[in-house]
This record gives sequence, C-alpha cells and structure tokens, in this order.
Amino acid sequence: MASSAAAATKQANGAGALDRLLAATQPEMERVNALILKRADSHVEMVPALARYLIEAGGKRLRPMLTIAAAMLCGKARGAQINYAAAVEFMHNATLLHDDVVDESDLRRGRPAARTIWGNQASVLVGDFLLGQAFMMMVEAGDLEALGVLSKAATIIAEGEVFQLAKAKDLSTTPEHYDQVIRAKTAMLFEAAAEVGAMAGGADAAIRAALRDYGRELGLAFQLVDDVLDYRGESGAMGKNTGDDLREGKMTLPVILALADANRAEREILVAALGQPAASETTLAQVVAIMNRHDTLGRTVELALAHVRLAREALAPLPASEMKTLLSDIAEFYVSRAY
Amino acid sequence: MASSAAAATKQANGAGALDRLLAATQPEMERVNALILKRADSHVEMVPALARYLIEAGGKRLRPMLTIAAAMLCGKARGAQINYAAAVEFMHNATLLHDDVVDESDLRRGRPAARTIWGNQASVLVGDFLLGQAFMMMVEAGDLEALGVLSKAATIIAEGEVFQLAKAKDLSTTPEHYDQVIRAKTAMLFEAAAEVGAMAGGADAAIRAALRDYGRELGLAFQLVDDVLDYRGESGAMGKNTGDDLREGKMTLPVILALADANRAEREILVAALGQPAASETTLAQVVAIMNRHDTLGRTVELALAHVRLAREALAPLPASEMKTLLSDIAEFYVSRAY
Repeated sequence: MASSAAAATKQANGAGALDRLLAATQPEMERVNALILKRADSHVEMVPALARYLIEAGGKRLRPMLTIAAAMLCGKARGAQINYAAAVEFMHNATLLHDDVVDESDLRRGRPAARTIWGNQASVLVGDFLLGQAFMMMVEAGDLEALGVLSKAATIIAEGEVFQLAKAKDLSTTPEHYDQVIRAKTAMLFEAAAEVGAMAGGADAAIRAALRDYGRELGLAFQLVDDVLDYRGESGAMGKNTGDDLREGKMTLPVILALADANRAEREILVAALGQPAASETTLAQVVAIMNRHDTLGRTVELALAHVRLAREALAPLPASEMKTLLSDIAEFYVSRAY
Repeated sequence: MASSAAAATKQANGAGALDRLLAATQPEMERVNALILKRADSHVEMVPALARYLIEAGGKRLRPMLTIAAAMLCGKARGAQINYAAAVEFMHNATLLHDDVVDESDLRRGRPAARTIWGNQASVLVGDFLLGQAFMMMVEAGDLEALGVLSKAATIIAEGEVFQLAKAKDLSTTPEHYDQVIRAKTAMLFEAAAEVGAMAGGADAAIRAALRDYGRELGLAFQLVDDVLDYRGESGAMGKNTGDDLREGKMTLPVILALADANRAEREILVAALGQPAASETTLAQVVAIMNRHDTLGRTVELALAHVRLAREALAPLPASEMKTLLSDIAEFYVSRAY
C-alpha cells in the first residue's frame, strides 16, 4: 500500500511535469505540427490520407518535443529546431509504418494500423516518402553536422530493427543483446532528437553531449517500460494489443529474465508460447504468472528507473533553469506509465 | 528484314558504347564498388548477407556509372562523385528491396528475390538501412545542395511508387498518368544521378541542367523499354518473370494503349487478365497478341526512341569530348534491349 501510494505520487509528479512541459513548448510545437501537416501533403492522395491517419492519431510527440525543449534550453535557437523536430517525428512515423508491416500488427495508437486499411504496400512506400521528406527538411535547415547526426540515427535504427528480427525466438538472447537492440531501435532517436535540438539552440560541446546522454537514457527507460506494458498493460494503455511481443517472439527483457530463472516446467510453457501468433489469453496469463513469480516485470521497471536516474544525472552540466527542472521532472513520466 | 538488320546494327552500336563507357569509368567504378561493399557491412550479420546478395547479383550499375561519367565529363571532380555514386546505388537497391515486397516478386536480377530467402520483414528493414547509409555517404561528401537533390529524389521516387500503386488495375489510367509515374519512380533517380555527378565535377548551371535533362530522358527511355520487355522479354532477359506487370495489374503504356484501342472482345480479355496473380501463359500470349494487333509494344518502343533523341539533344550545350560522345552513344543501348 505504501509503495502503491508512493507510485501514485510519482505518477502524479510525472504527469504534472508533462503538462508543464507541454505548456512551455506549446508555441513552438504548434509550428512543428503545422510543418508536419504541410510536409505530409502530396498530389498523390493516398500519401496524405495514410500519413495523416497515422500522424493525427494523437501520439504524444515526445521525440519532437525533446528537440524543441533542448533547443529552448540552450537559448539561441533560430528556427532550425522546427525542421529538426518535424524531421524526427517523420523518421519516427516512417519507422512505425514499417514496423507494423514487419510485425504484422493490427493496432497502432489504439486504432487499426494503417496497413490494415491501405495495405502493407502503401505502408512501406509512404514510410519511404516520410523518410525522404524528413531528409529534405533537414537539408533545408542547412546544417551538415545535424544532418550527419540524424542520418546516422536512421541507419542505426534500421540496423537495430534487423538485429531484433534476427533475435526473434532466439532462446540464447542475453540481456546484453536486448540492451544493444533497444539502444539502436529506440534510444538512438531520442538521443538524436535531443542532440539536434541542442545544436539548433547553439549549445557548446559539453551541453550538447549532456543532452545527447539525457535523450539516450530517457529512450532506454521508455523502451523498457514499453516492454513491461506489453505484458502488464491494460486495454488501450498503449493502443496496442497486450501480448503482441510474446506472439511475435520478441526477446524483450521480461521474457529473457524469465527464461533464465524458469524451472523446467515454466521454461516449457514459455518456449511453447513464444512466437505463437495464436497464443491465447490463458497462455498469456500463464506467462505473466511466471514473470511475476520471478519478478521479471518488476526488475525491468527497476532497470528503467535506473536509466531515469542516469538521464537526470546527465543534466548536471547544465546551468539551472526552468527548462532543466522540467526535463528532469519529465523523466519520471516515462516510467510512471508502468505503475 | 531490312529493319531487323538496322536494329541489329543499332544494338551492336549500343553494346559497343556500353563497353567503351565501362572501360572509361572502370577505375572510378572500382572505388565505387569498394565503397558499396564497405558500407553494406554491419555487425548485424543479416544486413551484409542480404545487402550483398542483392548488390553482388550483378546489376549493371547504370545509375552510379552515370554519376561517375557526368563527373568525369565536367573535369573537376575531387572525390565526392564516389560517395554520390555509391549513395545512388544504395537508394536504387533500397527501392528494389521495397518494390519486391510491394510487388510480391519472386525473382530479381535472375535470382530468387531477397524477400523469398530472408523474408519481407528483413527486406523492408535492410532497405531502410541502405537508405540511411546512402544519406550518411552524402553527408560525408559535404555538399548540402547535392544532398538536397538526392533527398528530394528519394521523396519523389516514393511518391511515384505510391501513385503507381494507387493506379493499379485502374482502367481509367491515361498515358499522362503513366508518364507521371515513370518520371517519378524511375527517371528521377537517373536525373539526380547525373546531376550530382555534374555537381561533383564542378559543372556550371548550364552544364548541370544539360546533364540533368540527359539523365531524365535516359531514365524515361529505360523504363519504357522495361515495360515492353515485361511483355516481350525472353526468359532471363531482365531477370524477372515475363508477365509480372500484367499479373500485378500495373498500368504500363503497352496495356493503356491496348485498352484504348481494343474492341469489346479484346477489352474483355485484357480486363479479365489484369491483376490476376495466376494468369496463365496462354492468357499472357492472348494479351500480347492483342498488343501486337494494335502495335502497342512497338509504339512504346517508338516513344522510348523519342526520349533517347531528347537525351542526346540535351547534351548539345556540352563542349565536344570523348565522354560526351560516349554518353550520346550509350543512350542507344538503353533501347537496344527492346529489339
């Protein structure tokens, strides 16, 4: 009860910080959103139809907001941050479109995935279109170094996705492999989003490195919580189906830790369920019971909290400011979803 | 017979020009090929395995060769052309990987398509990886303007592919729609390949525009011939299955023209065959017979020849040189495949 009350307080703090960050970044984010809608347009009707369906589904825009917040914090932003933020969101949405094809997902952000309406083909191609537009917006911002950061991120993200795919259903996957996957497929974009924000804000090398580290740790915490919610989530919490990772055979930390600690009978259940597209709710409940017996969901949340602490510590070199406090407080929000 | 002899001569001239162009660009193309292999590498084994399977299948590297030839022609190339050429080939290969997923193709360059070996998922993701690497190589070359040309090309290519998809099986597709599709999905990359080569070679605005126009017209001729070969091709000529376009319901010029000229009975045959994945060889032969009756394959080749002439005319502003002659002669090669 006490820990549950503490968790509720943490969640409230996190949500409060999110509201304050949303308010602080709102004018800039409105410019970002306008640019996003403009650049999702095309004379080919299917492009804006599909792109807007996904973009307007109301993701929280955490990544572009990170770019904007980093730029504001550094104080000398002249406009490039708007392009970078929109580019970051396009890169993210391109990844979502391709991921849904790769994962054969039916839901995204609580609605039918675009691929179930327009088909896998259009999802692949509109993802490519968004990636192209992302690069065009970066080019227009005119900073080769920032372009380098984002194009490297695009490459590493794809590489991480391939690595995850190669490791699907691989029972020998270690926590280190998992760490490698999430650093690439998720944390890389958070890291790059914060870094190009800092660059747009005129940050020096130390501040830029601090914000890059902050973004990376935040991204790691975010993915760890996502992977907990895939087993513990209530309907609609993520806009995805609970148990998707299990059915796709994704080797996330909760399952890796469970396999390591399972007795023979538990291991048989886990192995039989992993990668079974038709695994039932009963099977899922059995798997979650095994995870709870070995506290693998709890330990994954603990690791997420450790990354939140690292994110906050990364901010140390920054001078005190309202935005620094917000970024420190918001880190909690990323994990609060797991309570 | 006379026209067949003339065609054979043209083909020989074209092939001769190709050999001379290959020889002239060989030292630079070896650097391009080395860079391609290096940048297809990754610590994630599936990435180089899949990428090299495709890259080493022995495409003719026409697009990067165009970049190198344009740079050599302009005379002041300092090395960026190697990066651009490799980036152009990566963009092309990323498109092929995604296209094969979109088209559900089984063959590519005469071998099983990568997706039939590694799956659609890996093909989508390795395509994304190659696109990311392409942009990284462009960034390393350090010219924002060239990056603008290639990122715009990436966007327009994807847009063209979506347009083609939207028009599949659409009987109201006009030759103008088709022209719009092939300008975007095919000619754009030839155009950009030639243009960034010119930029790397230090071309002035007029020369740059001339080479851009040349690339575009060459690309249009190339795609027109490809679309003829899909109906007229002999086994292995393209490394694809003859009749794929028909089975996928692709509205290419030979079928658009046939639908426009068909009598009622012919139209019924065409409509019934379009987009039927299981359309038999007999059906395909019936369709080709209708096309021959209305000379739609011949008229498509004629249009390709018109674009070859435009390509040659585009070279007019260039001072006389060995490379100019080669580029003029090579244009014939693109159409000679159709004889």
